[in-house]
Amino acid sequence: MIGVDWGTSSFRAYRLTPDGHVIDKTTSPTGILFVEGGRFADVLRRAILPWVNAGERRVLLSGMIGSRQGWIEAPYLPCPAGAADLAAATIAVPFNDAEVRLVPGVTAEDAGVPEVMRGEETQIIGTLRELGPSGVACLPGSHAKWVRVENGRIMGFSTFMTGEAFAAFSGHTILGRMMKVDAPADPAALRQGLARSADAGGLLRHLFGVRTLGLFGRLSEDSAASYLSGLLLGHEVRAALAAHPDMGSILLIGDAKLCALYADAIAFCGGSARIAKADAAPLGLTAIAAAVAWH
Amino acid sequence: MIGVDWGTSSFRAYRLTPDGHVIDKTTSPTGILFVEGGRFADVLRRAILPWVNAGERRVLLSGMIGSRQGWIEAPYLPCPAGAADLAAATIAVPFNDAEVRLVPGVTAEDAGVPEVMRGEETQIIGTLRELGPSGVACLPGSHAKWVRVENGRIMGFSTFMTGEAFAAFSGHTILGRMMKVDAPADPAALRQGLARSADAGGLLRHLFGVRTLGLFGRLSEDSAASYLSGLLLGHEVRAALAAHPDMGSILLIGDAKLCALYADAIAFCGGSARIAKADAAPLGLTAIAAAVAWH
Repeated sequence: MIGVDWGTSSFRAYRLTPDGHVIDKTTSPTGILFVEGGRFADVLRRAILPWVNAGERRVLLSGMIGSRQGWIEAPYLPCPAGAADLAAATIAVPFNDAEVRLVPGVTAEDAGVPEVMRGEETQIIGTLRELGPSGVACLPGSHAKWVRVENGRIMGFSTFMTGEAFAAFSGHTILGRMMKVDAPADPAALRQGLARSADAGGLLRHLFGVRTLGLFGRLSEDSAASYLSGLLLGHEVRAALAAHPDMGSILLIGDAKLCALYADAIAFCGGSARIAKADAAPLGLTAIAAAVAWH
Repeated sequence: MIGVDWGTSSFRAYRLTPDGHVIDKTTSPTGILFVEGGRFADVLRRAILPWVNAGERRVLLSGMIGSRQGWIEAPYLPCPAGAADLAAATIAVPFNDAEVRLVPGVTAEDAGVPEVMRGEETQIIGTLRELGPSGVACLPGSHAKWVRVENGRIMGFSTFMTGEAFAAFSGHTILGRMMKVDAPADPAALRQGLARSADAGGLLRHLFGVRTLGLFGRLSEDSAASYLSGLLLGHEVRAALAAHPDMGSILLIGDAKLCALYADAIAFCGGSARIAKADAAPLGLTAIAAAVAWH
């Protein structure tokens, strides 16, 4: 089969064996934001044509390609959502050369406020062997997700705007003037920020410390970005750990560097974490595809 | 005497009687960021010359004019700081036509992180009659201050980057795409945000709700900015109220519209507040000037 992880800024297509082994792979920067005039079919055809010519007839897509800004909007599937639930909720996409289906995103509800994910559900399914039937996974990123799984199904999750908040505060507030954003990471300053996040006063207050510590020469321009990162990460991790007591070790899924950062932050804040080894998206696409009723 | 409230973006000069009555007043947009080449003396001379010619010989300045980016840097005075402490710590500024002195900013320490204010200390002194000898004042703004006063002296304070966070999130994150920032305030959406701030999960999580509520058609573009404002304000107010139990009614000082917004938010979150009637800066300048040892 063919699996495609099609996000906002990137496109990754895989030719896969039935057990999720990657036979071939092609990636391009044609994320949905960079596809002009809705020419999604052309982008897909160009990428997978050799595999279709070699006999592949089933294509499963996941990610933002199913959003309102994507090819066809696939309504969010409410939790609980396991591989079978997602497979049953895939929707058909018109395409000439193969049967193309789209994995829906997932939604949950928290005190009257909805949560959404698109693409992460597929990565979760792809790492179930490492996560075990029940546990908590965390997918760092500009909108980090913490996901609770029971018996192989996503039961609920929460999103933290940590990465985007870092970009906004470092790039568009007075705090940015106190820091060299591209300075190498300073682990001591990061820990200082993580520690500060445990104090009373809340994030909006702690943020001002980036300015005052700099003003008093107690935080250098080279270290301020790491301190800010520690502050934000600490607020996220402490809130997430509090929401999931007795959760055991958290499985981190995603970019290796970001996962290592989160593993350190989780340990610093009193939790424990491990980093997923699996190539989450292709394994998840394979597992969901195995449960789809293809024509 | 002459009192000048000289901030980052504005300049307000007052001719004052010994009891703080404003005889005359002049304002201009020559805040310190808009004074070129350090020509602070010229700006001051032009504004106050008629009063100097009429016999005024004492000039007291407060605000960011005493910062590193201002005329002369006045080191921060550590708390506790009352009118007499501030008067004793004023510093002389070279000026030909009158004796000019500068009120220092104030600093406090919270768990190893400094706090700073410049200008707000003078407003606090100016509203002591309304505040009473002891109490808590709040000065809303892009960096809001909550200030604890005992026996007429500032004992400690905390700064919340609420206003600047609103600008950063509404202007420079995905949340901005969900809202019309200049839509009229929506009191119901504001209350909805204030209520959400009481839930578990923390600010970084609650922020994502601006996006998902919009995505599901449960928050309109016209109401999203008020909801975001309520979220941020709620996080500030709840943290500040928790830090000051049994504080009584909080005295709000500053812009009338902003003070009314804060008064509602404080009441919503279970506190009580009143809005200062006094023209805080000229009264504070008068009170501090009365304690200065002029030549």
